[in-house]
Amino acid sequence: MAVWDSLIRFTANGGQYWAALPLETTPAAGLSVQGFASIEDLESGTGGVDVTVEKLLAPVPVTGIPIICVGLNYRNHANEASLPIPATPPMWYKPEASLADPDTEVPFPVQAQNNFPDFEGELTIVLRDSIKNITPAEAASHILGYTIGNDLTARVFQRSCGGQYTYAKGFDKFAPLGPRLVHPSHITPDARGSIQTRVNGRTVQNSHFDFIFPVDELLSFLSQGTTIAAGTAILTGTPAGVGWFQDPKTSLKHGDVVEVEVKPIGVLKTTIVFEK
Amino acid sequence: MAVWDSLIRFTANGGQYWAALPLETTPAAGLSVQGFASIEDLESGTGGVDVTVEKLLAPVPVTGIPIICVGLNYRNHANEASLPIPATPPMWYKPEASLADPDTEVPFPVQAQNNFPDFEGELTIVLRDSIKNITPAEAASHILGYTIGNDLTARVFQRSCGGQYTYAKGFDKFAPLGPRLVHPSHITPDARGSIQTRVNGRTVQNSHFDFIFPVDELLSFLSQGTTIAAGTAILTGTPAGVGWFQDPKTSLKHGDVVEVEVKPIGVLKTTIVFEK
Repeated sequence: MAVWDSLIRFTANGGQYWAALPLETTPAAGLSVQGFASIEDLESGTGGVDVTVEKLLAPVPVTGIPIICVGLNYRNHANEASLPIPATPPMWYKPEASLADPDTEVPFPVQAQNNFPDFEGELTIVLRDSIKNITPAEAASHILGYTIGNDLTARVFQRSCGGQYTYAKGFDKFAPLGPRLVHPSHITPDARGSIQTRVNGRTVQNSHFDFIFPVDELLSFLSQGTTIAAGTAILTGTPAGVGWFQDPKTSLKHGDVVEVEVKPIGVLKTTIVFEK
Repeated sequence: MAVWDSLIRFTANGGQYWAALPLETTPAAGLSVQGFASIEDLESGTGGVDVTVEKLLAPVPVTGIPIICVGLNYRNHANEASLPIPATPPMWYKPEASLADPDTEVPFPVQAQNNFPDFEGELTIVLRDSIKNITPAEAASHILGYTIGNDLTARVFQRSCGGQYTYAKGFDKFAPLGPRLVHPSHITPDARGSIQTRVNGRTVQNSHFDFIFPVDELLSFLSQGTTIAAGTAILTGTPAGVGWFQDPKTSLKHGDVVEVEVKPIGVLKTTIVFEK
């Protein structure tokens, strides 16, 4: 029996809190909850206070650290991109300033606006502790929970930068995460689960978790010879349907609302704002 | 007139210090210097103490942050790799745990030993402050100094991970930096400067700074829409001569000593140790 089913991080009374939510409660501003200073306090029942949720924050226990992205992890996306299935997982980092909260506006810099701004809905792992050289069998014990990520991308730079994806995806606030963290006992990160993305209400991605590299193998591979910090968020790749591969190609525009949904996590909603 | 010509960071008496060195002094353990708690203290002359250098540390003012790498920035390396000159600079991050000190042993994990361990000598920029949306003309004022980096790489993963370089280059301690930071007034990051790499005394890289993307343009490009933290180290790419493109291909072996030299910074020496 898990101590919590899902967690939100949020602001209230000028501070920052964690609270547990039942799965059937939709994370939102205005909820009355018992707030804790940390997940550890929440799990041990230390120092809870009655608070009202003001603004949801990205549900990660450590901020100011890079986010890991994995690419080409859905066969249907590799197919639409006409890219071969890689022997080992493509991965890259989004820098610390790329983290963005759920239900928020993401300002797109001019550099991204002019180079095919696009979305990628992704199931996202959050690590409970630091890992290095773990086996696939050990992976599950290090997962704090799952959330949803949107791997925002200025698509042109994926090609023009010698094929390296990092610049295209590393702009400030290009990694919205949320709306909550769901306990691993409630998520089946395999073909039983699915993910949908909508742009202005139109469904553009709709796929089972058709993972080429399952979550346990991914974490083991990523950790070989490499220390991955506690609290790191790992985006597990996107399915078919991104704007670049739609017919006709359709980039994001100022004011577009992108919603990524994974049950029972909920909906990660992001509004696209083009900076002047 | 610069307040300092070059800086070292080092351990002494169980603490960590910065000290200024004349360019003609070779950074090394055993030197008697005036140590300061920070570069700010050194520049303002606050609280210096007489200490003896015990161990040189990577000369960066902030640790625990990602390191930026730039690729394909020398025409002679793009040529040997048979890769087209990119329209915009390829870049990626090495994670925080990749930082390694100068004059040290770097333990190569099994995952790297078996996948063509290789070196890349690189001129390295260290930022004085945080940058975002800077112009090329503004770049110079944000450079704290230059050091030398070795972009250690397990070459096989550059291809097998769908062409993404990050995993190949992100193992713990795969970014040795040092031996010191030289004031920008003493470095000409253009064809007047040059870099050499030796493996066990044999010269394997020897090139002028044949940059496709000059330093000022690089910093401007990297900072568009993207906050780059104060103290970030930026490796500017490697010239021709890495082991993968030698004839015959020659990977690094246990016990190899790699030295990267840039005048007047000095020599960054790294000893390769294969972990059991």
